[in-house]
Amino acid sequence: MELLNQIPIAMKTILDRRNFLKKTTAAGLSLTLAPGIVFSRNASSRQSSVSIGFIGVGGHGHHLIEHALKVKDVTVKAICDIKKENLERGLNMVKKATGLRPSGYGEHEYIYREMLEKEDLDGVIIATPWRWHIPMAIDAMKSGAYAAVEAGPASTVKECWDLVETAESTGLHAMLLENHCYDRWNMAILNMIRKGLFGELLHCHCGYEHDLRGRIVTGKGTGISREEVAGGDYRTLQNLKRNGDLYPTHGIGPVSQCLDIHRGNRFTSLVSMSTKSAGLKLWAEENLDSDHPARDFNWQMGDIVTTMIRCYNGETVVMNFDTRAPRPYSNMRRVQGTKGIWLQDGNAFSLDKSVIYIEGKSSHHQWEPFASYQKKYEHPLWQRYLKEGVVGGHRGSGFLKIRGFIEAVRRQKRTPIDTYDTAAWKAISPLSEESIEQGSQTVTFPDFTNRKWMTNKPIFGLTEKY
Amino acid sequence: MELLNQIPIAMKTILDRRNFLKKTTAAGLSLTLAPGIVFSRNASSRQSSVSIGFIGVGGHGHHLIEHALKVKDVTVKAICDIKKENLERGLNMVKKATGLRPSGYGEHEYIYREMLEKEDLDGVIIATPWRWHIPMAIDAMKSGAYAAVEAGPASTVKECWDLVETAESTGLHAMLLENHCYDRWNMAILNMIRKGLFGELLHCHCGYEHDLRGRIVTGKGTGISREEVAGGDYRTLQNLKRNGDLYPTHGIGPVSQCLDIHRGNRFTSLVSMSTKSAGLKLWAEENLDSDHPARDFNWQMGDIVTTMIRCYNGETVVMNFDTRAPRPYSNMRRVQGTKGIWLQDGNAFSLDKSVIYIEGKSSHHQWEPFASYQKKYEHPLWQRYLKEGVVGGHRGSGFLKIRGFIEAVRRQKRTPIDTYDTAAWKAISPLSEESIEQGSQTVTFPDFTNRKWMTNKPIFGLTEKY
Repeated sequence: MELLNQIPIAMKTILDRRNFLKKTTAAGLSLTLAPGIVFSRNASSRQSSVSIGFIGVGGHGHHLIEHALKVKDVTVKAICDIKKENLERGLNMVKKATGLRPSGYGEHEYIYREMLEKEDLDGVIIATPWRWHIPMAIDAMKSGAYAAVEAGPASTVKECWDLVETAESTGLHAMLLENHCYDRWNMAILNMIRKGLFGELLHCHCGYEHDLRGRIVTGKGTGISREEVAGGDYRTLQNLKRNGDLYPTHGIGPVSQCLDIHRGNRFTSLVSMSTKSAGLKLWAEENLDSDHPARDFNWQMGDIVTTMIRCYNGETVVMNFDTRAPRPYSNMRRVQGTKGIWLQDGNAFSLDKSVIYIEGKSSHHQWEPFASYQKKYEHPLWQRYLKEGVVGGHRGSGFLKIRGFIEAVRRQKRTPIDTYDTAAWKAISPLSEESIEQGSQTVTFPDFTNRKWMTNKPIFGLTEKY
Repeated sequence: MELLNQIPIAMKTILDRRNFLKKTTAAGLSLTLAPGIVFSRNASSRQSSVSIGFIGVGGHGHHLIEHALKVKDVTVKAICDIKKENLERGLNMVKKATGLRPSGYGEHEYIYREMLEKEDLDGVIIATPWRWHIPMAIDAMKSGAYAAVEAGPASTVKECWDLVETAESTGLHAMLLENHCYDRWNMAILNMIRKGLFGELLHCHCGYEHDLRGRIVTGKGTGISREEVAGGDYRTLQNLKRNGDLYPTHGIGPVSQCLDIHRGNRFTSLVSMSTKSAGLKLWAEENLDSDHPARDFNWQMGDIVTTMIRCYNGETVVMNFDTRAPRPYSNMRRVQGTKGIWLQDGNAFSLDKSVIYIEGKSSHHQWEPFASYQKKYEHPLWQRYLKEGVVGGHRGSGFLKIRGFIEAVRRQKRTPIDTYDTAAWKAISPLSEESIEQGSQTVTFPDFTNRKWMTNKPIFGLTEKY
């Protein structure tokens, strides 16, 4: 604080934030800044290109590099992955696409910190196992870079607070890379809500319903040995030792935006209920060799976890977390207001199968296919995207989330999904566990904005640009 | 108890139960009988025909008379309704169909007690406003008759206990007339569960989602004046003064049977969450004259109430109560186990639109239309019913529930939906209110069976006959 107070306000606006942060960190100073102090980038040196680093470039992270390379004026400057094959594949992909080979880091789990220290990064994209998301995002912001983290649970509510405090003290942002927020139907629904077609919102339903039994039990796709399975794969260990909604963000992301959460509204309470655990044990018995260690695992995770959340403005949300039973994929979406209702359930990702009812437009008490509404109320961002050409992977929404992050970094603006969203959406997991541990008692939802939700304005999906 | 102990067991089996009950009641004796004592009817005098009385023969009750007249060997002996036009219409219908005019009762709200006292009824079918269901069923059993009551909430948990205690002390039964239990798809699903197609059950979803705004706000169809609306119609007053799931039985009935509730399983806890109340006020503003008193009503009922229930055997149930917003009808059914899942949501009552996934039968991660399963796993009761000819009204299930009740009365057996079911399903309403009143705290679900669930066996849908 002392150091800050010695610098005139005018100076601060052109201060090289990253150097400042490194110096203050090195000097052991507290990173708590006065509220309202926002750093501006040294525009002259960096306007033309945004420098991005990646931590974790396995299956999903690899796609994120692909998307980043398709955004204009981006330099992928450094990549970190402790798996050599992932790292090499990532480095080679960038070299092939741009002619420049990024710096590579992979020697040990904490080598990413060396990358953050050495490289002059504007933004860091993190796609590591779940427990690393928030600690790495915090470290990235402390190094002076924006952070982007993949979907997945927080470990504790405390680390969500730490994330928020780091963002506020550094003036930087941590964006959850929630591609479902950018899905074509979800953005059309958001557009319709903003145009008033649903009236006053009342209720939403959402979920992550994806049969992942094989991947959970065996860690399939992670390259670990069958003996290492319980310790080595994030899904396996997390299902052995946790019971709650561990993958809430695909569901809650779009819902949160529909309900203006952190922009005039907030989550106030949460309650979760879990079924018994039967599906993973059964799957192991039916699919694994008789001596496979995973046959004897004692799964804490109930097969289906349902969560209810109440909002300050009186809406409710129901969420399903259902990855331990056989079923087709679904996100079980429902958005309901005083004027209409939209349902997308057994038909995720199928534009022509979800249904809608809008009072005064639909025939009395008859569902309509959503397809004509999709066309009529296409979000401006998607209208433009469809004209420019949709970039593949995750229904086109994977590219949009990366572009959204990078363009916010370039402009040094608040990310379209901001740190408060990231903290609250990921905090659903430990809150859900806490509720279940107490016999499904309703728990208070922390206000990560510290009352800023009362005045903050919507930021997501307001332009056609990014 | 003294009187009972003086009667040899052999005598008891031919005792005229009703006369006994009337005498003991008149003498002011406690009606608590020793457990296991069950009265048998004097078979010789009554085998040929079952005598039925009706209380409440308005819109729905009228249909129940129609159904009863189609059951073989039934005498509709008496009808009670305080609305003269309902009573006359009912009496005339029976006269026209059978040549015999039943006795009519209608002078005041408690005249039904005179009917119970004077008429020698085997069973009483009750379709009055909600708050009368359980008190009348208790009085019917005390008079020596089986009771059947329509769907709707209990007023309090206490009256559910009273119902159970009366049934146990009289050896009689109170059956909830839940036609959804007899719906063709629900019985096929039950059949499939019993054949093991879903594996071990994990989770069910159900609801009552029916846009009733006009009927709730104005009491439409009840014939009351607009000034009397708040006091006169059961839906209006109940929505003004209660907040909870007030219509749980259409949803929970079939679910309860799928989960063997009270037969090796039971509900253990419940939590409800309510949205704000916006829909009824808005409807009144948009649809009523500016001086209509209902425009100023202060509705306590939230627009959408969601309830989660946990079962002893580790399954969970989610229920929607959604009658205060515009939407097509739905019961939002989902049944899910370790081997498969069935969904019926935006497509209630449409056999060809619900979808199913059964591991090993369905193509990998693809929904199948339910229609072929319906045909293959048609419940034996429905196989026979389809051959005999389906009797109209409420999808054919209205007749089945009435026949089920009457045939249990004829045989003096436990009703297929028994008193414990009736008590527990109707108790969801006051339990739900209690949870909401405590800020959505999880409440304990009473064990109305007093541990008999540990040994009781399934009774519903076990034969092709009734």
